Amino acid sequence: MEFSNYFFASTEIIGIISASISGCIIARKCKFDLFGIMLCAILSSLGGGIIRDILIGALPPRSFYNYIYPLSSVITSLTVFTIFKILKNKIPLRQDLMRMLFLIFDAIGLASFSISGVQIGLESGYGNNGYLCIILGMTTAVGGGIIRDVITAHVPLVLREEIYATASLLGSAIYYFAIKLGVNQALSLYVSMFLIILIRLLSIRYKWHLPKGDEE
Amino acid sequence: MEFSNYFFASTEIIGIISASISGCIIARKCKFDLFGIMLCAILSSLGGGIIRDILIGALPPRSFYNYIYPLSSVITSLTVFTIFKILKNKIPLRQDLMRMLFLIFDAIGLASFSISGVQIGLESGYGNNGYLCIILGMTTAVGGGIIRDVITAHVPLVLREEIYATASLLGSAIYYFAIKLGVNQALSLYVSMFLIILIRLLSIRYKWHLPKGDEE
Amino acid sequence: MEFSNYFFASTEIIGIISASISGCIIARKCKFDLFGIMLCAILSSLGGGIIRDILIGALPPRSFYNYIYPLSSVITSLTVFTIFKILKNKIPLRQDLMRMLFLIFDAIGLASFSISGVQIGLESGYGNNGYLCIILGMTTAVGGGIIRDVITAHVPLVLREEIYATASLLGSAIYYFAIKLGVNQALSLYVSMFLIILIRLLSIRYKWHLPKGDEE
Repeated sequence: MEFSNYFFASTEIIGIISASISGCIIARKCKFDLFGIMLCAILSSLGGGIIRDILIGALPPRSFYNYIYPLSSVITSLTVFTIFKILKNKIPLRQDLMRMLFLIFDAIGLASFSISGVQIGLESGYGNNGYLCIILGMTTAVGGGIIRDVITAHVPLVLREEIYATASLLGSAIYYFAIKLGVNQALSLYVSMFLIILIRLLSIRYKWHLPKGDEE
Repeated sequence: MEFSNYFFASTEIIGIISASISGCIIARKCKFDLFGIMLCAILSSLGGGIIRDILIGALPPRSFYNYIYPLSSVITSLTVFTIFKILKNKIPLRQDLMRMLFLIFDAIGLASFSISGVQIGLESGYGNNGYLCIILGMTTAVGGGIIRDVITAHVPLVLREEIYATASLLGSAIYYFAIKLGVNQALSLYVSMFLIILIRLLSIRYKWHLPKGDEE
Repeated sequence: MEFSNYFFASTEIIGIISASISGCIIARKCKFDLFGIMLCAILSSLGGGIIRDILIGALPPRSFYNYIYPLSSVITSLTVFTIFKILKNKIPLRQDLMRMLFLIFDAIGLASFSISGVQIGLESGYGNNGYLCIILGMTTAVGGGIIRDVITAHVPLVLREEIYATASLLGSAIYYFAIKLGVNQALSLYVSMFLIILIRLLSIRYKWHLPKGDEE
């Protein structure tokens, strides 16, 4: 299944790049040095996949076996770092612009990792346990962000944001059932990724949220 | 060993429900939305067991394989959430009452997970390594609470509280040695769980503590 | 290879003692009680190794199998605790002195764990994957400190400090290539450990740092 693998590899790389960018933006806000920025990008982008590989016992995790993973993240960080340096003297990088960029790349990362998580569950022989595959998608997707937020001393986005893990769960479920029903893999992948990003961004734009637990 | 399994399963469920309630109370204090409350409950109640399963290489962890685990936690969260909503308009949910409830359910969770950790150590063929079984009990017991506290940006209770991991260690050791000496499993389970809860709550009530390291 | 094992075991013990001391100093600053100090020391000193063993699937981790690991850490904590108690009434334990001691022991721990991580990678049959061995050294080295810092609610040193993970990476690489080139193990070990400590301490003394990402 060369085709499947090609699509799958692209999804993983898109996820790593997007999550690295989100890591860079938050690291820059925390005034980390270049190495801190790179490490934050690496943990944000590889953390979810490492957790996923530990959970299914695929050890050592992919990112520890193949240097392509951290390399993609390092190159992304260096690029983002350079762009920030150049832009700084040309146009102002306002906080709200940075916040918007952060949320967009975080959403793309969320979508890519959800699908890659489900896919690895399917390929690891757990195809009959839908619960496991879908939950693996969500864990891969939110894992890196949790590490990123804990390490930069923020309450994780997944706990603060209205529609986050829910978007990942929904997209993972759609992908899983589409594959099980025999829908074309590329189509399943694009539709479910697009849906996760759309739901996530619409929820930010229109401030969708679930009922709050209030504290008097 | 139907009898043993029945008791063991009940202990696990009691632990999950209690830890979920403790997670809900702390999540409510942090003003998380419903999904945040559920996720906090899930991480508090399943976190310790996931860490335990990773440590003994029983992968994927039980909670990722069987949806009964998160489902118990989700149902608990929804119930607690509804009770809070209803009670809010009837009687005031004062901070000290909430704190007391939190500490009680946290103690029950601590006790249940200590025993379930030791039991899984025994059942996984590590029965001859008492150190491993007892430490596995303590890790299972404090793991979920550490995740809950780190994620809600608190210094973990296990580091702040006088008698916490010690109570778990003691109860785990009593359970381990009772089983090794051939004492009836149900009796061992009840006595050691009761002891952990008792020691933990007495230590809060009478402010027991170990000598402090002082900083001038 | 008795000789090799002897050296390797000493490195591990030196790492555990040094990391425990660094954990004690930070726990004392946070005013933890004696048990909190011990737990903080245990997590600081065993955390990296536990992460390493999980990553290569060597489960249960060494520290859960053999009580010598936590025992070394507990004895160290008790000793440090007693020394602090005695010294307190004799000479003032100033914050800057404590900070200096913390950084020195943290550096020794960083160096020891880097080498022990690479060595375990080599011994676990990953000798041909230099990337894996070197990254395993760094992960072992920074893992315990990250746990220590997250648990005591500090932004991890590895993200704040200029030359930290870099020093570990460099030393791990030197050790790996020295062993691969057939250099005497004791010599490789001493030289690479010495280099890591030297680079780390010089970077603190002379405030070396990488370019900062600035936030306006």
